[in-house]
Amino acid sequence: MDYALLISTYTDQHRHRGWPRQRLLHECLRAAIRNGTLAAGTRLVATRALAAELGVARNTVLYAYEQLASEGFVTTDRRGTVVVAMAPAHAVAEAPPPATHAGLSRRMRDLRTPPDAAHMMGAFVTGVPALDHFPLTLWRRMLERAWRSLSAAQLNYADAAGEAVLRDAIADHLRASRGVVCDASQVFITDGTQSSLDLCCRAFADDGDTIWLENPGYGGALAAARGAGLNVAGIDVDDDGIAPGADDWLLRPPRLVYTTPSHQYPTGSVLSLRRRLALIESAREAGALVIEDDYDSEFRYDGAPLSAIQGLAPDAPVLYLGTFSKTMFPSLRLAFVVAPKALAGPLAQMRAQSASRGRVAEQLALAEFLRSGQFALHLRRMRRLYRQRRDALIEALQRHVGDIAQVHGASAGMHLALRFQGMVLDDAAISAQARERSIVAHALSVQRTQGACGWNGLMLGYAQIPAEQMDGLVRTLAALLHAPSSGAAGDGLRVHAAQQRRTT
Amino acid sequence: MDYALLISTYTDQHRHRGWPRQRLLHECLRAAIRNGTLAAGTRLVATRALAAELGVARNTVLYAYEQLASEGFVTTDRRGTVVVAMAPAHAVAEAPPPATHAGLSRRMRDLRTPPDAAHMMGAFVTGVPALDHFPLTLWRRMLERAWRSLSAAQLNYADAAGEAVLRDAIADHLRASRGVVCDASQVFITDGTQSSLDLCCRAFADDGDTIWLENPGYGGALAAARGAGLNVAGIDVDDDGIAPGADDWLLRPPRLVYTTPSHQYPTGSVLSLRRRLALIESAREAGALVIEDDYDSEFRYDGAPLSAIQGLAPDAPVLYLGTFSKTMFPSLRLAFVVAPKALAGPLAQMRAQSASRGRVAEQLALAEFLRSGQFALHLRRMRRLYRQRRDALIEALQRHVGDIAQVHGASAGMHLALRFQGMVLDDAAISAQARERSIVAHALSVQRTQGACGWNGLMLGYAQIPAEQMDGLVRTLAALLHAPSSGAAGDGLRVHAAQQRRTT
Repeated sequence: MDYALLISTYTDQHRHRGWPRQRLLHECLRAAIRNGTLAAGTRLVATRALAAELGVARNTVLYAYEQLASEGFVTTDRRGTVVVAMAPAHAVAEAPPPATHAGLSRRMRDLRTPPDAAHMMGAFVTGVPALDHFPLTLWRRMLERAWRSLSAAQLNYADAAGEAVLRDAIADHLRASRGVVCDASQVFITDGTQSSLDLCCRAFADDGDTIWLENPGYGGALAAARGAGLNVAGIDVDDDGIAPGADDWLLRPPRLVYTTPSHQYPTGSVLSLRRRLALIESAREAGALVIEDDYDSEFRYDGAPLSAIQGLAPDAPVLYLGTFSKTMFPSLRLAFVVAPKALAGPLAQMRAQSASRGRVAEQLALAEFLRSGQFALHLRRMRRLYRQRRDALIEALQRHVGDIAQVHGASAGMHLALRFQGMVLDDAAISAQARERSIVAHALSVQRTQGACGWNGLMLGYAQIPAEQMDGLVRTLAALLHAPSSGAAGDGLRVHAAQQRRTT
Repeated sequence: MDYALLISTYTDQHRHRGWPRQRLLHECLRAAIRNGTLAAGTRLVATRALAAELGVARNTVLYAYEQLASEGFVTTDRRGTVVVAMAPAHAVAEAPPPATHAGLSRRMRDLRTPPDAAHMMGAFVTGVPALDHFPLTLWRRMLERAWRSLSAAQLNYADAAGEAVLRDAIADHLRASRGVVCDASQVFITDGTQSSLDLCCRAFADDGDTIWLENPGYGGALAAARGAGLNVAGIDVDDDGIAPGADDWLLRPPRLVYTTPSHQYPTGSVLSLRRRLALIESAREAGALVIEDDYDSEFRYDGAPLSAIQGLAPDAPVLYLGTFSKTMFPSLRLAFVVAPKALAGPLAQMRAQSASRGRVAEQLALAEFLRSGQFALHLRRMRRLYRQRRDALIEALQRHVGDIAQVHGASAGMHLALRFQGMVLDDAAISAQARERSIVAHALSVQRTQGACGWNGLMLGYAQIPAEQMDGLVRTLAALLHAPSSGAAGDGLRVHAAQQRRTT
């Protein structure tokens, strides 16, 4: 392979794009792998040698190789870097759509396969609160009162931003409990975080603009980004949350940055204060907006509470997202976006044209639930309950799988991540086996948003599982983890990628 | 002006696009008008002369001029065709965004200015049912019963397509009353027509794909199309509804065709059966999907009922949209999409990933309302009531403005169109004056979706106005129409465009 020729040809064709040298090299090699010029199994020339041949800094080459690895096109072993066979990561993105997607737009074809019904219920399913502890009778009473208070005129189209009393109650709650700096005019009611994400992606980015997603990250954000025609860049997540490098800001400048700083989805990492402040500053410099999805951080068990990014700097360029799906119950369908003050007016204009304007009684009832103190009381009770359940789960995990897996991200929220130590266990295979035993434990590696994600393990939701059942469930899981077959189905790429994960 | 030079230069630059000759000519002239080469006031060379000079058929030139006229770039008088001064039609599309839009994405900046609160309530506002005639107590009882029937498990995320009992009840109702051929698996519950439109635009078209909107047409469809990054082509509407020409299918082939065949929004035109059948055939040939928005056709007063397009041919390529905002009440937020059988599976897949899954109690209550016969009873009552109100409005209009305006599109729905005769009255100016007298009568010309729309008049909603109040309200309106100033604010372009409207 004449790399100099390959690269100079490519450079000639793409000169007009004005890409920096490292991006040119990265794009060139990727194109060569895609079109088969660099076939699967090909061993790439050593970084030092290629740098010398091309007359560039070795860092330039290292960067390109690292990008290719993070995208799953190459893998490294002790002897160097090898082009991988069709990797599952881009098999997902590039395989022809399965028959069930026929007729859908391109942008909607390559969403992750959604969980089937069996995925949604079962032990360790994530995102589901302790439904049987919700004060349903009390809620029904408030709802009935709200309905009886309605005049005929209130059956009409309502304010597109939401009912004023609810926006007000939410602003008060956020200021007091989450350090969010806002007033009611900045709060926009939606029917769920998916709608909030759709709104943010369409209102604040255009087709082809880049959005950063955490990698691994939330599938709903991926769906919203794809649906809005955005260009997705997966940014690595490490033990301290989303970890963009200076190169990312330079080479893949974002219009939007989606992040779950208080309890990263799915890993549970908590974004450090240093990184929070850096994120605001970098976003401001780049003219980007941060979408801060604070989906389950009302439940915090240990460690000092961290304020929402939104409140860390005056007029932070942050769209703060919250939901009542976890704190109340999922089928309620009430959530919200808090917009920066300067964007509240334009957003109100847009919502007036495109929002679904109604559900007055539900909003009034929720406002009363908040105002009456019942919401805070319910949160306190659930925090206590979930902490017991979390503690029971952690104990059981340490007892039964402490030798081969580690608990991560358990300081807040309703789920934790169980990370597999070493390279032996295949999380996707174990997740599939668990499902046959009615255990719903999503694999971390499957939550990738671009290329491979470098995490290997399971997501375990505990909010809806009584403490006394934990030990039995974990035993079932432990049997799978200790079974000799666990490693058999392992796929080389993901395991290698996990090894290479950048820890910036 | 050397037209031959102008056009040959343009042709050279755009040869690679492979456009047919008439499109080249149209695009070339439009570009020349936009960049000032053909300044406002310039009289275009006569079609016959230009055809001779270019050596093309005169029809080619006629077509180009007609397109420019329909887009508002030129106008014709007895002596020929003149480039207009900055026309309001494209001033809307091309003016820099007002300050209130700062920060929004490009695609969301140029939506029509949404109605403010004052627009939403007042005499003649459209789209609002007789709220004080809704059986609210009965509905509350059904809702309370549904809530009491819920188990804790039903507070969880629900089926993304909607509750099975509701989908089933809707399918039964549509088969019986609208001639829609479907089963429950094709019915997808949404929280309003705006959501249905967003869904259709994103699930079945990609950025840059063309969607046809009726011109004039529904602003919500325009918002959904823009939000999905689609390329909007406004198709003329005449007395028999949307009227695409063969040229439209050829030159602006659509991926989606949005239409309101049973009671065109805003004109009230009813799409003829011949055109319905032709639309299905042409859409099938073009590989396009028709979005049939049947928003208020449950209320039909005279003339033979026409089946929904969806049911006119087996497996018609139609996405049928319905809503309970008009038949029940707007703040309910329940509507639906009926997908073709072949697309139901893919859509279910996509919804599982991106839909807002919940509101079980409301859906169960609505299913009971339908099943119990209360829905049909309510519809019968409202049909009787609205017919009385419509008759009273028509009588009053004939009495007070019969000399200068004509009622159109009153055979169904909840509003009618009052068309101004002749070129004197300026509908936008009259609408503004009416608002000062608490009368909300939207101007037809403002409902344009591309260029000028060729309609001049007002939309008058009557569903919520007692019959005995009609005469007084119409008197107020009549005073405005007969005032000597009505024509003063008239803008030449729109009036001329009305003259030129194609009547295919």
